Amino acid sequence: MLDHWLGKKPVMEFERDDGYRDSSDMASYFTGPKDWQPIEREAMRFVRGRILDVGCGPGRHALHLQRRNFRVVGIDASATQVALARLRGLREVYQASVWRLPKGLGKFDTVMLMGNNLGLAGNLPRMRTFLRDLREITTARGRILGHTRIPGTWIAHHLPYVKRNIARGRPPGLIRLRVRYRGRVGDWFELLLISPDDLIALAHGTGWELTRLIWKPEVSPADYIAVLDRR
Amino acid sequence: MLDHWLGKKPVMEFERDDGYRDSSDMASYFTGPKDWQPIEREAMRFVRGRILDVGCGPGRHALHLQRRNFRVVGIDASATQVALARLRGLREVYQASVWRLPKGLGKFDTVMLMGNNLGLAGNLPRMRTFLRDLREITTARGRILGHTRIPGTWIAHHLPYVKRNIARGRPPGLIRLRVRYRGRVGDWFELLLISPDDLIALAHGTGWELTRLIWKPEVSPADYIAVLDRR
Repeated sequence: MLDHWLGKKPVMEFERDDGYRDSSDMASYFTGPKDWQPIEREAMRFVRGRILDVGCGPGRHALHLQRRNFRVVGIDASATQVALARLRGLREVYQASVWRLPKGLGKFDTVMLMGNNLGLAGNLPRMRTFLRDLREITTARGRILGHTRIPGTWIAHHLPYVKRNIARGRPPGLIRLRVRYRGRVGDWFELLLISPDDLIALAHGTGWELTRLIWKPEVSPADYIAVLDRR
Repeated sequence: MLDHWLGKKPVMEFERDDGYRDSSDMASYFTGPKDWQPIEREAMRFVRGRILDVGCGPGRHALHLQRRNFRVVGIDASATQVALARLRGLREVYQASVWRLPKGLGKFDTVMLMGNNLGLAGNLPRMRTFLRDLREITTARGRILGHTRIPGTWIAHHLPYVKRNIARGRPPGLIRLRVRYRGRVGDWFELLLISPDDLIALAHGTGWELTRLIWKPEVSPADYIAVLDRR
């Protein structure tokens, strides 16, 4: 808040392992639907039943849905984010990693993975385990709403990265990055960005089916939200 | 021309093997640059040296370049298209299939594959042979300008087709189709639509490298033109 008074915008910076940096305004993690990406607003139409918000951060989507009387549980790997979401009023929120989902939370009808979180588990073997784990904690009409991006081959500073991945036999959109915020530097982690074609195959092999793609290329050509339903 | 006087627009219809039909106004094959897709106009900036226009049709791009004093050779599998292009003033144009490129035409600096022609060879083994053949008939600074589309997973009538391909182990964007025009029906043929990621891998294995992607998602989210240079 002090930053706000001083006229500084707090910014979270993403550093990719080839030195490329991108930043995102911290304020965007605290916005309501009218400031979301249009695909995020659209995705809310496909939410149903009891919801798990994976990588919920300070609870931007979860709080919106809780206010609309959905039963929402948030999880986040960061204790700070969990504390923030709780402070902001999210009733059920726990610290947990996508590599080890909490077991005692019951079943969910919808699992949300917003803000590029679909590929949070990282490489393909981990993604397969993660998607199978999600199947275990969802009901028969289980659904995933997963936000990701197509690898940016048309962008001069992304194409060489994608090409290097492919030459090394890695998935085109597997990126290694870390977060910088107010002088602190987080650990390196892997994030998978995946095209719809590749997602169809990955989903198919793990008990899911791509039933709809929410994409507004005229607004943002890379971002999309996949609706995956249990097969 | 008579159609024009009668107020009928001659239309070429594409029929996919699942029954889906799409049509394209014949007039579009005879237009000048101002009526082209913006990515086609943009692609003309990357043409250099002696040019081969593969699947030239009535010569819309080839004639434009010939007028600008490029040396252009057109080839097309259809004798009718070859005759049309010649009639319209294209000086060098031959009947030839992408599966058997003519050998006696010398070397080219640029090979153009416009109008979705990049995937004209069909399935992946044929595409590999085709791209290797193109390498043989290009100079050391050989370049391909190839127009294709990303498979339309966000479109309700394309998603099941892509999913079926993937379930069968076929490339996501391999489609089987035939052309209908004035009551005549052509033979079934295969056309490969390919995403940039998959194209990077295909090119890499056949002596080419994707150096630039011409894409204007705000105009047409599926279409792009790849610039492939010899490795």
